[in-house]
Amino acid sequence: MVELAPPPSEDFQGIWENGLGSQMELSVQGNDVSGIYRTNVGEPTPTEEFDLTGFASGDLITFTVNFGKYGSLTAWAGQHTVIRPGEFEIKTLWHLAKNIAEQNEPKELWSGILAGANSFVRPTP
Amino acid sequence: MVELAPPPSEDFQGIWENGLGSQMELSVQGNDVSGIYRTNVGEPTPTEEFDLTGFASGDLITFTVNFGKYGSLTAWAGQHTVIRPGEFEIKTLWHLAKNIAEQNEPKELWSGILAGANSFVRPTP
Amino acid sequence: MVELAPPPSEDFQGIWENGLGSQMELSVQGNDVSGIYRTNVGEPTPTEEFDLTGFASGDLITFTVNFGKYGSLTAWAGQHTVIRPGEFEIKTLWHLAKNIAEQNEPKELWSGILAGANSFVRPTP
Amino acid sequence: MVELAPPPSEDFQGIWENGLGSQMELSVQGNDVSGIYRTNVGEPTPTEEFDLTGFASGDLITFTVNFGKYGSLTAWAGQHTVIRPGEFEIKTLWHLAKNIAEQNEPKELWSGILAGANSFVRPTP
Repeated sequence: MVELAPPPSEDFQGIWENGLGSQMELSVQGNDVSGIYRTNVGEPTPTEEFDLTGFASGDLITFTVNFGKYGSLTAWAGQHTVIRPGEFEIKTLWHLAKNIAEQNEPKELWSGILAGANSFVRPTP
Repeated sequence: MVELAPPPSEDFQGIWENGLGSQMELSVQGNDVSGIYRTNVGEPTPTEEFDLTGFASGDLITFTVNFGKYGSLTAWAGQHTVIRPGEFEIKTLWHLAKNIAEQNEPKELWSGILAGANSFVRPTP
Repeated sequence: MVELAPPPSEDFQGIWENGLGSQMELSVQGNDVSGIYRTNVGEPTPTEEFDLTGFASGDLITFTVNFGKYGSLTAWAGQHTVIRPGEFEIKTLWHLAKNIAEQNEPKELWSGILAGANSFVRPTP
Repeated sequence: MVELAPPPSEDFQGIWENGLGSQMELSVQGNDVSGIYRTNVGEPTPTEEFDLTGFASGDLITFTVNFGKYGSLTAWAGQHTVIRPGEFEIKTLWHLAKNIAEQNEPKELWSGILAGANSFVRPTP
């Protein structure tokens, strides 16, 4: 039996931006998160869209985006938090796996994972 | 338009174990990964099952598991690799987000993320 | 022979703050970084000081702080960058190792590492 | 006043290997760790040596290595543990900061940090 998890306690639904030209649009159904991740938003280069899947429970969220077209997959883990009344942030850390040529794997495998932090906020109206 | 990613180049389908009493059973459809993550496998404590969702492209995989029942969500990113002929490993790093009490968030928010490494291999027959 | 590394290209010397009540005071000699890390700066609780050691080369810096009194050690890795002309930031990721009771180690060892991000800026005059 | 930390409870002193052609030789004085990190050990390519500095307290250790000659600095955080009686391991996670060209920094800064895991054991006699 798959274990029951508390539903999201926060409103993750809708659009979030990371301030670096990326935007995500989340749909939440129970604990399931699905959506679209957009890069180069508001830039001369065309906006590109990538599939997103994940989970939300309580004020926590994890999600992953399929950047396979560019040879990488990224997974985020984070928490919804209140910056100030009415202003919200999803504070995350991420790992990005990118392909390492097969012949270099034994020594370099770990060098195929990048790490970083992202804060997502609601777009300014 | 959602961007096209190369399909998985490796066989991620089926059962993988991490040697620490956890097991996952993956289903792959195109780039979409779904499945079940089991803990306490082979122990006196009962096996528990948790939902898993993610992506695979080339030899890369990302996935997240809904441990919301236990107040956490975990996201893995990694790569399929050959240890020796016929023996395979998914080498991953993970972030686990766990709930921080609201009143402690401003100072402790980052302390809500644990990090680690897991290697998943095929179960010994 | 120990390999030669380029000297720091940025001015890491002096006081930096992380906006969460912590402050560090760095001394740089060649590639060697030493200093003091202060917590609870500007708060009613007394300021505490902890030893810091690390390296700087080019615009990169790594350092670790001895929080052993509180059962943990933390290591940062990051880069000096320009936010806007005359305004600088050291953007870092960190791992904090904290003690796990010996009997829990086999299963929980990885859960002894927390991860996070810190941005250090010059104190406002 | 710099806070007092418990001394190391484990014997970190001496040579440790990561099984990927790297070796470190640690000296411990109180909580201070210094040493040399060697790469390409036992390979046709010549062994190179890099400075190491860090801390140990209880069974925890953090250290950083100056790979500045190769444009990177790495910081490890981990714990000494017993694999089986008489066999020890230092299980670590690391961040490697590598230089990002100044003009690419605003968007790519976080992509300058790699993450990974290393297990160090005593060399086989």
